Amino acid sequence: MLPPKVVTEPWIKQWLREDIGRGDWAVQGLGARSHSPGSGYWVAKAPGILCGLPLAQQVFSVLDGQVSFIPQVQDGTAVEPGQTIAELSGPLGSLLTGERVALNLAMRLSGISTATRQYVDRIASYSAQFVDTRKTTPGLRILEKYATHIGGAQNHRMGLDDGVMIKDNHIAAAGGIELAVQQVRQRIPYPLTIEVETESLAQVKTAVAAGADIIMLDNMEPDQMREAVTLIRASGKAVKIEASGNVSLETITAVAATGVDYISSSGPITRSQWLDLSMRIKTYPSP
Amino acid sequence: MLPPKVVTEPWIKQWLREDIGRGDWAVQGLGARSHSPGSGYWVAKAPGILCGLPLAQQVFSVLDGQVSFIPQVQDGTAVEPGQTIAELSGPLGSLLTGERVALNLAMRLSGISTATRQYVDRIASYSAQFVDTRKTTPGLRILEKYATHIGGAQNHRMGLDDGVMIKDNHIAAAGGIELAVQQVRQRIPYPLTIEVETESLAQVKTAVAAGADIIMLDNMEPDQMREAVTLIRASGKAVKIEASGNVSLETITAVAATGVDYISSSGPITRSQWLDLSMRIKTYPSP
Amino acid sequence: MLPPKVVTEPWIKQWLREDIGRGDWAVQGLGARSHSPGSGYWVAKAPGILCGLPLAQQVFSVLDGQVSFIPQVQDGTAVEPGQTIAELSGPLGSLLTGERVALNLAMRLSGISTATRQYVDRIASYSAQFVDTRKTTPGLRILEKYATHIGGAQNHRMGLDDGVMIKDNHIAAAGGIELAVQQVRQRIPYPLTIEVETESLAQVKTAVAAGADIIMLDNMEPDQMREAVTLIRASGKAVKIEASGNVSLETITAVAATGVDYISSSGPITRSQWLDLSMRIKTYPSP
Amino acid sequence: MLPPKVVTEPWIKQWLREDIGRGDWAVQGLGARSHSPGSGYWVAKAPGILCGLPLAQQVFSVLDGQVSFIPQVQDGTAVEPGQTIAELSGPLGSLLTGERVALNLAMRLSGISTATRQYVDRIASYSAQFVDTRKTTPGLRILEKYATHIGGAQNHRMGLDDGVMIKDNHIAAAGGIELAVQQVRQRIPYPLTIEVETESLAQVKTAVAAGADIIMLDNMEPDQMREAVTLIRASGKAVKIEASGNVSLETITAVAATGVDYISSSGPITRSQWLDLSMRIKTYPSP
Amino acid sequence: MLPPKVVTEPWIKQWLREDIGRGDWAVQGLGARSHSPGSGYWVAKAPGILCGLPLAQQVFSVLDGQVSFIPQVQDGTAVEPGQTIAELSGPLGSLLTGERVALNLAMRLSGISTATRQYVDRIASYSAQFVDTRKTTPGLRILEKYATHIGGAQNHRMGLDDGVMIKDNHIAAAGGIELAVQQVRQRIPYPLTIEVETESLAQVKTAVAAGADIIMLDNMEPDQMREAVTLIRASGKAVKIEASGNVSLETITAVAATGVDYISSSGPITRSQWLDLSMRIKTYPSP
Amino acid sequence: MLPPKVVTEPWIKQWLREDIGRGDWAVQGLGARSHSPGSGYWVAKAPGILCGLPLAQQVFSVLDGQVSFIPQVQDGTAVEPGQTIAELSGPLGSLLTGERVALNLAMRLSGISTATRQYVDRIASYSAQFVDTRKTTPGLRILEKYATHIGGAQNHRMGLDDGVMIKDNHIAAAGGIELAVQQVRQRIPYPLTIEVETESLAQVKTAVAAGADIIMLDNMEPDQMREAVTLIRASGKAVKIEASGNVSLETITAVAATGVDYISSSGPITRSQWLDLSMRIKTYPSP
Repeated sequence: MLPPKVVTEPWIKQWLREDIGRGDWAVQGLGARSHSPGSGYWVAKAPGILCGLPLAQQVFSVLDGQVSFIPQVQDGTAVEPGQTIAELSGPLGSLLTGERVALNLAMRLSGISTATRQYVDRIASYSAQFVDTRKTTPGLRILEKYATHIGGAQNHRMGLDDGVMIKDNHIAAAGGIELAVQQVRQRIPYPLTIEVETESLAQVKTAVAAGADIIMLDNMEPDQMREAVTLIRASGKAVKIEASGNVSLETITAVAATGVDYISSSGPITRSQWLDLSMRIKTYPSP
Repeated sequence: MLPPKVVTEPWIKQWLREDIGRGDWAVQGLGARSHSPGSGYWVAKAPGILCGLPLAQQVFSVLDGQVSFIPQVQDGTAVEPGQTIAELSGPLGSLLTGERVALNLAMRLSGISTATRQYVDRIASYSAQFVDTRKTTPGLRILEKYATHIGGAQNHRMGLDDGVMIKDNHIAAAGGIELAVQQVRQRIPYPLTIEVETESLAQVKTAVAAGADIIMLDNMEPDQMREAVTLIRASGKAVKIEASGNVSLETITAVAATGVDYISSSGPITRSQWLDLSMRIKTYPSP
Repeated sequence: MLPPKVVTEPWIKQWLREDIGRGDWAVQGLGARSHSPGSGYWVAKAPGILCGLPLAQQVFSVLDGQVSFIPQVQDGTAVEPGQTIAELSGPLGSLLTGERVALNLAMRLSGISTATRQYVDRIASYSAQFVDTRKTTPGLRILEKYATHIGGAQNHRMGLDDGVMIKDNHIAAAGGIELAVQQVRQRIPYPLTIEVETESLAQVKTAVAAGADIIMLDNMEPDQMREAVTLIRASGKAVKIEASGNVSLETITAVAATGVDYISSSGPITRSQWLDLSMRIKTYPSP
Repeated sequence: MLPPKVVTEPWIKQWLREDIGRGDWAVQGLGARSHSPGSGYWVAKAPGILCGLPLAQQVFSVLDGQVSFIPQVQDGTAVEPGQTIAELSGPLGSLLTGERVALNLAMRLSGISTATRQYVDRIASYSAQFVDTRKTTPGLRILEKYATHIGGAQNHRMGLDDGVMIKDNHIAAAGGIELAVQQVRQRIPYPLTIEVETESLAQVKTAVAAGADIIMLDNMEPDQMREAVTLIRASGKAVKIEASGNVSLETITAVAATGVDYISSSGPITRSQWLDLSMRIKTYPSP
Repeated sequence: MLPPKVVTEPWIKQWLREDIGRGDWAVQGLGARSHSPGSGYWVAKAPGILCGLPLAQQVFSVLDGQVSFIPQVQDGTAVEPGQTIAELSGPLGSLLTGERVALNLAMRLSGISTATRQYVDRIASYSAQFVDTRKTTPGLRILEKYATHIGGAQNHRMGLDDGVMIKDNHIAAAGGIELAVQQVRQRIPYPLTIEVETESLAQVKTAVAAGADIIMLDNMEPDQMREAVTLIRASGKAVKIEASGNVSLETITAVAATGVDYISSSGPITRSQWLDLSMRIKTYPSP
Repeated sequence: MLPPKVVTEPWIKQWLREDIGRGDWAVQGLGARSHSPGSGYWVAKAPGILCGLPLAQQVFSVLDGQVSFIPQVQDGTAVEPGQTIAELSGPLGSLLTGERVALNLAMRLSGISTATRQYVDRIASYSAQFVDTRKTTPGLRILEKYATHIGGAQNHRMGLDDGVMIKDNHIAAAGGIELAVQQVRQRIPYPLTIEVETESLAQVKTAVAAGADIIMLDNMEPDQMREAVTLIRASGKAVKIEASGNVSLETITAVAATGVDYISSSGPITRSQWLDLSMRIKTYPSP
């Protein structure tokens, strides 16, 4: 479910260069010994949902085609501390040079998947889907959203161009919800959907009438959300309903209970910790 | 203290393109109204140490030279919820298109600075300096380390090439600490320093004898650290001492009390939340 | 309605470098005279719908910030032979170096807009919208679709990621339309719509039942299309209907008469001629 | 006769990324089934001169090294509707993801070769060579000129730096043909040739005297061209003669009959249709 | 005579990033003082022909738009030790950060121009032109050839694509000079010229007969060259003659005396020293 | 000791594209014969220290994966005229297309290693190490420094970010050596060392007191250097001493005799000639 390598490889190269700079002196300083065969494994040091092993694999293969990195679990697997998650072998120096970039990536993504799973689990008994937002680390949008997906979320739009969100500022600029929807609709690719951000029932009504495909209930209290959901469903239109704003592990169940279709939160990306993973070398060049 | 724009602009461009993709349909869909003048401000929604405003400024200026983004506080300032942190004006559409990338960057960096400040404050009465690590988000190394610096940390090396860290794996590959230091020393630029990771007092002694410039005490208990510090100071050599491993807000004071020179932790980067910031538009095109 | 310059400038630079190579010998060979002020204008040499002047402007401003290129008509304007469409002035050498790239771009795009307008005009009295396809010149996707939009078309999806088209091959791979829609739906960003390509009424029914957002009637005869439209409308679902395949200026009216919502054709892009435009210099350096 | 891959691969990557964007949702949405082996073939749907199969091969190999794409005919072959032109096999998802980019490229180039062949055939019994111009689609210069070559044309210069064309504007800027030729000659690499654009017999004479290597007869009537040819040949100098302007399938024979060496036209590039080609999958994953 | 900035700026950026890496710590370490206004000048420390000031100007303007760098002499000027060659002012830190890259470039290019001038002066009384070769530092081809031109040389072809050189290996591969010229001629852009490398009078005769545009006399003794020149001139064809191989300041006059048109040597590029230039700051921030 | 390929390959690609431009007409002009297998070797034509064969290998492998280039000697080997230094085989056209770029690189680097060895040999009996500077050809910093290392030098810092050099201008800007060292020390990564440039004994004393890690004695006479060395050693601090300025093959021994630790000179890079190397083809396609 990752995009083809022609999309991801430029990032991998950039990240390796970021760490390596003008050279890995510790490895290059070892001279010929850095070319000796080595092997090792990756181990989880904390419980969580693993994510990013195919990317770690790419890191090593971009760095050195002779390195073999074989994930022992699939992305999305719940792992326990001490569990081996990948085996790798190849020139010892390449294993060491690639270690940090590969781990940083997998630790960050696994942290997101782990946090996402918590949100998703809270609303498992509701029909609402948990979705992410555009609050992502610059440069990692696709991969961080891959991680929320692996954690059980559905993705929201990936950028400004594969979905339209009409927010308060766009509405004010256009001179109202109707005008905004109408202006935008005539200029965008026709398969795209338009979501309108609303903050009151009046806005919800207007948005339904204006032909919004998705209505976001922004920062509403559960009771108001429930009213909005009723109101939208009553219109008979095929409008999707998304709840957003102040969604946390504490509040998400109450939001799901309002009957909305989607609940969006940046929490798994902006309020998560990295999952602790580690690389261990088990074979060195003989002395 | 940020590097020149010739270094940072390619990232800014990449991040804008990541979000914009093939176009910002909501803004482009507004037609001519998107070119109307607008103005607004940025506001902090949570208390913390601000970081990244000069980069937010670059985001907007790269996107549209007509946008003016004027920070109201300097990076490193402690801000309160509700505090205005920047004023901006320019074509309304450009304000909206650049909003998310600029905020994502500043929120992430401010979160790091805020967390760093907590670590730094804990050891303010000790001579030890708090330093960061190479556990950084791929693609953001320099900026995340800028954020720890803004938060009060001193930076550790920025990559594999501006300092040498000889770890257990390098030692095993070289056939011992002495050989490792010796092999590496003769191949690296002479102004670079060599740090050796040690896990026992025996290793500490060997590292001192081998001529390490910096000795890392890795995952040692405070008592052992204290012994190591005494042992190293007794050598009369100008060796810097760094403590690393399991450093948290709870444990850092005890570590500082051992007399080490530097305490490194990835905590502010791997275990911090984004600082909540928001953009508000106050002037729209007249209807 | 063009994306921000941070998106288009890399192309402009690439195209200038493609033509200039290691230098414009004719201009550089003129020595200091190439820096003399010059002025001129662009003129249409054939009737058509103009498109691409803002991009021509970017070509010259990327090449030399001292060049002023001022469109005299807006993109989308119908022009006549002999009509002045832009005025330009600046260092003579820069006017000459940028001429070919800027003209090539505008001629190609204007040719597309001109052809598009013909298709659009044919179905002006029907509710059907004319839309483009992904048959675009490699590297020019966004701009060629900008040209169809300027010509009066609505855009179809811009790439493989801002809309989903399930074709016969995807259906076969998935094991049927239902499975395909279901498999895909659960993995894509939720605001995206799914279009299913159908070749028979049976497939149309299955696609409606499977929850397709858009149904493409591929290569059907008008009568069959009409039946399909009736069948889909009868479902009461908010499904959009697109006709595709063998759409030409001759056949499009009959297709529109079937009641479909959208008619897609690559004709304006794959079967159009460039619009003839020319640059004329009127001021030279004095001898 | 294509340049090495180090030249063409960056384009191929750019074009794949243009279409794929953040991912091919239809293929990625199929999950594991997208990795199943598939096979198929390419077929011509209209008669023409095929061009671009080695590039289509590169598209697939850049996308996925496991795909095998084997042209069944060489570029330059005249094909008939229904003729199989390539066989391909590999992971089904990669066949589908690469399809559009590869086809767009080959269809565009084949359209150019097909049109070129028509011009070339018209003057087959004359000594004049048909040549192309710099009116090419931005970003496709080398490949479109490869296509005219495959169609039977000889290439004109590829850019502003591998040949010098002194046009009316350059002449005016320099203060006359003699000055222009002289100024330019002393500043350019000595193996380069200088072509001078002329619009009258007087200019032709001056250009010959000035030492032009090639003289372009621009927009002249056949009779005037004949006079010019006679005049130039009489000079005894080894000057090549090129006719240009208003060359069409209707007029080209009369131009060739004037005795010129080269006839240039942008027609095959600016006035050609894409050749219709199609991909068909014949093996799917078993259900 | 330099190509437009759209060609040179990517190099300048790359070179600045090469030196700056992750930041200029000495300048950034100065804090706010690095933004203070400063001024200074460039001075020649050895006699020579200056080259590269417009590029030094670009280095500073790419680094910081606020820096003003004003050449005091034109490229090609003979300068004396102690002579001021440029004045510059701007933020002090930017002057210091850009210093090394700008100087390295100008010193290297001036060294080439200086050496070139020596070769050119030796043959000033002959009609032969001194020309360069493709032995240039990777990445600096255009600029090093700009430097030979500034020094008084005429450029040879700039790369493998703006001129054709048929060498012994090509001849052997093709099966003889005639076949080689014929094979190549039919596949290349028609304005390009073909040069044939010859090592004997027999080869010279064949090359003339085969229609070479330029004949290179490779590693011949002056007497043999003279014979070759006589032989070629007697053919009555407009063939240019180039002498190559073992050309040094000692031998070049004898070669020129043979009557060849061009004498090529890589000497000014492969056997020259950098010209010593230095930057001096004269205004600092007040204490 | 070269950095990983992910660092060097972009340069190799850029350099091949620089030479090839839009195509290698001589090779492409040979048609199918250019694909015939060929083989050959590289030979030294002058005595020297070889450097750059692994990079030449990369040039050919980046150009064409089918080419095999096998160094016959290791970088750092002293070679004699006529000695075979590499064997290569593969498609004949690829051998010819890659020849110049690969040779240019190896000739330039070998010239530097050869010159470096001379400096190093002069001071072989002293403890001083010979080191390079930042006077390197733009774009070749890492490789030229690799060449000095291969020649026996130790590298100085690679750029502005892996070591700090406080020069007279920085000192003036900061308001004195103490302030400069203090300001910079608190802002840089802690493993970095600070070198202070001094021109008098007074400055040397201040620099020692200020805590400089390295003191550069700039342009001092040997006697003054000796005094400075005595003074610094007497401080009991672990300060490294570098001599710089006017170091030549004539003066270097006297400098080494002063007891300094390092002697830096740009001589091997700014005043060296390329080492003459040549490629010879021995197998051609059969006629």
